[in-house]
Amino acid sequence: MTGDRWTRGEALFRKVDGDRVADNLLEAYNEVAPDFARYLVEFAFGEIYAREGDLRHRELVAISSLATMGGCDAQLETHVHGAFSVGLTKDEIIECVMTLIPYIGFPKALNAMAVVKRVIEKRATSERSAETEV
Amino acid sequence: MTGDRWTRGEALFRKVDGDRVADNLLEAYNEVAPDFARYLVEFAFGEIYAREGDLRHRELVAISSLATMGGCDAQLETHVHGAFSVGLTKDEIIECVMTLIPYIGFPKALNAMAVVKRVIEKRATSERSAETEV
Amino acid sequence: MTGDRWTRGEALFRKVDGDRVADNLLEAYNEVAPDFARYLVEFAFGEIYAREGDLRHRELVAISSLATMGGCDAQLETHVHGAFSVGLTKDEIIECVMTLIPYIGFPKALNAMAVVKRVIEKRATSERSAETEV
Amino acid sequence: MTGDRWTRGEALFRKVDGDRVADNLLEAYNEVAPDFARYLVEFAFGEIYAREGDLRHRELVAISSLATMGGCDAQLETHVHGAFSVGLTKDEIIECVMTLIPYIGFPKALNAMAVVKRVIEKRATSERSAETEV
Amino acid sequence: MTGDRWTRGEALFRKVDGDRVADNLLEAYNEVAPDFARYLVEFAFGEIYAREGDLRHRELVAISSLATMGGCDAQLETHVHGAFSVGLTKDEIIECVMTLIPYIGFPKALNAMAVVKRVIEKRATSERSAETEV
Amino acid sequence: MTGDRWTRGEALFRKVDGDRVADNLLEAYNEVAPDFARYLVEFAFGEIYAREGDLRHRELVAISSLATMGGCDAQLETHVHGAFSVGLTKDEIIECVMTLIPYIGFPKALNAMAVVKRVIEKRATSERSAETEV
Repeated sequence: MTGDRWTRGEALFRKVDGDRVADNLLEAYNEVAPDFARYLVEFAFGEIYAREGDLRHRELVAISSLATMGGCDAQLETHVHGAFSVGLTKDEIIECVMTLIPYIGFPKALNAMAVVKRVIEKRATSERSAETEV
Repeated sequence: MTGDRWTRGEALFRKVDGDRVADNLLEAYNEVAPDFARYLVEFAFGEIYAREGDLRHRELVAISSLATMGGCDAQLETHVHGAFSVGLTKDEIIECVMTLIPYIGFPKALNAMAVVKRVIEKRATSERSAETEV
Repeated sequence: MTGDRWTRGEALFRKVDGDRVADNLLEAYNEVAPDFARYLVEFAFGEIYAREGDLRHRELVAISSLATMGGCDAQLETHVHGAFSVGLTKDEIIECVMTLIPYIGFPKALNAMAVVKRVIEKRATSERSAETEV
Repeated sequence: MTGDRWTRGEALFRKVDGDRVADNLLEAYNEVAPDFARYLVEFAFGEIYAREGDLRHRELVAISSLATMGGCDAQLETHVHGAFSVGLTKDEIIECVMTLIPYIGFPKALNAMAVVKRVIEKRATSERSAETEV
Repeated sequence: MTGDRWTRGEALFRKVDGDRVADNLLEAYNEVAPDFARYLVEFAFGEIYAREGDLRHRELVAISSLATMGGCDAQLETHVHGAFSVGLTKDEIIECVMTLIPYIGFPKALNAMAVVKRVIEKRATSERSAETEV
Repeated sequence: MTGDRWTRGEALFRKVDGDRVADNLLEAYNEVAPDFARYLVEFAFGEIYAREGDLRHRELVAISSLATMGGCDAQLETHVHGAFSVGLTKDEIIECVMTLIPYIGFPKALNAMAVVKRVIEKRATSERSAETEV
C-alpha cells in the first residue's frame, strides 16, 4: 500500500508549493498520466523531501539545481516561493543566486535572478493586497 | 589596485579549498594563463565568496550546482572538502545529494554521491593517520 | 549532385513533421540561411532518418534526447506528432516520458509531459473537428 | 511496507544490470548512504521500470537520455549491456546512436558510440572465452 | 576602489549591448540585487571583456557558448546585436551558427538561427525607419 | 555519389585534426559503425567545415561550444590543436577560454584551460624534440 507515502507527500507538497500549484498539477495530469503526479507526490515529496533534515537546505539545493540546469522557470518560481515558506529570508535567497554566478556564469544566473525578482514582487503585491483588504 | 580583493580572496580560497589545492592551482596556471587564477581568487573568492552570509549555504549551493552540471568531479571533490571545512556535517552533505535525486535524476546523483563517498573515506583515512602519528 | 538525398529527405521530413511544419521551416530560413534547411533535409532526414530501421525507435530516441536536453519544446512537439505518425501509441509515448523520470529528474520530465499532453489534446480536437465536418 | 517494490525492483535490477553491477552498487553505498541504493531499487526499478511496456523501448530511452546528458559513461555502459539483455540487437543499438547524431551533434554521439563499441567488444570476448571453456 | 573597472566596464557594456539594454538591466536589478549588475559591469565587462584582443572573436565566443547552453535567447539576441556592433558581418554571424550544427545538433542550432534571423530582421526594419525619417 | 564530399572532407579532416587522429578514428569505427566516420567526414567536414569563411572563426566556435557542453575533452584537445593548425595564436586561444569565464563559469572554464595548457605543453615538447633531431 502506498497510503503513507501519499499522505505524507501530499502534505509536504501543499506546504511547500502551495495549494494552488498542487491542485493545478494534480488536476492537469489526472487524465493523461495520473501516475506522473503520484510519483511526484509519493517519491519526490513522500520519500525524499520527507527525510530528516533542514528544509531550508532542501530549498537552497532545489534553487541551485534548477538555476544550473536552466529551462525550468516555472519550477524555479515554485521553489523560490517554497524557500520563503520554509523560512529562508529574501537576503538568503538572493545570496544563493549571487553565489551561483562563478559556477554557472552570468546568463543562467541572470535568468534565475529574474525569477527571484518576480517572486519577490508578487509576494509584495499580495501582502499589500492583504493589507488593504483589512 | 586589486590588492584588497586578492588578499581577502586568497585567504578564503586557502580556507575553503586547502593550501595544497590552492598552491597547485596557482602554480599550474602561472605560466600559461596567470590571469585565470587571479580572476578566480579576486572575483570568485574575493568578491562573491567574501559576501556576508552563511558559508554553509555557499557550499551547499556549490555542491548542488556542480552535481547538476556534471563533468566537474575535481571541483566537486574540492567543494565537498570545503563543505566539511565550513562546518557542514557528513549527514548534511549526504542529504544534499539525496535531495538532488528528484531534480537531476539517479545517474548524475550517483556520480555526485561517488565523489562524496571518496571524500569521506579520504578524510577518515587521514584522521586515522593523524591519530597513529601521535 | 545532392538530388537523391534531397528527394528522399524531403519525403521523410513531410511524412514525419507534416506539410505545415515543413513548409514553414523551409520558407522561414529561405532568405537568411537557405543551407540550414538544406542540411536538415539532406543530412538529418535524407541520410540519418532514411537509414534502415524501425521508425518508432527513431522517434523514441528523438523524444528522449529532446526531453533530456530541454529548451526545445517546439522540436519536441513536432516529434511527439511524428511519434504518432509512425505508429507509436499514446501509451507508448507516455511511457517514454515516465521512463525518463529517474534519468533526468521530475522538472525536465514535467516539461516533456506538458508537451505530450498538449499534442494529445490538439490531436483529439482536430479529430473531433474532422468528425463534425463529415 | 516497501517489501513489494524492493523485491520486484531488485529482480529487475539484477536482470537488466547483471548481478556483478548490482552487487557492487548495493555494497558500495551500504555504509555511506544505504537509502540511495534503496531508492534506486524501489523507485527507479520497482516502480518505473516495472511498469507495463516494452523493455526494449525502456533501454532505447535510457541510452538516448544518457548519451544526450553526457558524463555518465559507466551508467551508459550498464544500459548498453541492459539493451542486449532485454533483446535489442547490435544493429538496433548502433542505430540508436546514429539517430542521435542530428540531435546531440558528433562529439557527444562519438562518446556514446565509443561506449557501445567497448560493450560489443567485451561481449564478443566473453563469448569467445565461454566457447573455449567448453 | 572599484571606480576604474566600473567606468571601463560600463563604457564597453553600453558599446556592445546598447544603451537601452544597459539602462534596463541596471534599473531592473537596482532594488533587488544591485550587486548583480555591478559584478556584470565590473567583472564581465570591466575585466574580461576589456582585455586586449579581437572583439569580433569575443562575440563569436559568446554566441557559440550561448547557443550551446540553450535557454538564454534574450542574452543571445543581445550578443547577436553586439556582434554587428563590433564589426562582424551578417555572413560571419550566420556562418557561426552553421558551424555549430555538427557540435550541438540541429534543434539547438535552429533555436540560435531563429534568434539571428530575428535580429537581422529588426535591424533591417530600424534601418528602413531611419531612412524614411530623413 | 558521395565522392566529392568525401574527398573534400577527408582533406580538411586531416588538415585540422592531423593524420594520426584521423587514421585512428577511421580505423576505430570501421568495423562497428563505418557510417559514423563517413558522416563525420562527409557532413561535418565535407559540407559544413568546407563552407567559405574564416577557418580561425570555425575553430573558435568549436572550442567555445565544446568547453560549454563539457565532457568532451578529447574532442576539445583535437580542436585546440586544430586552432593552431589554422593559424590562431596561443594568445588568441587562451583569450577564447578567458572570454568564456563569465558565460560558463569557472569550473567548466578551468576544465577547458587545462586542455589548452596540455596542448601547449605537448606542442612545446614536440617542437623541442624536432629541434634536437636536427
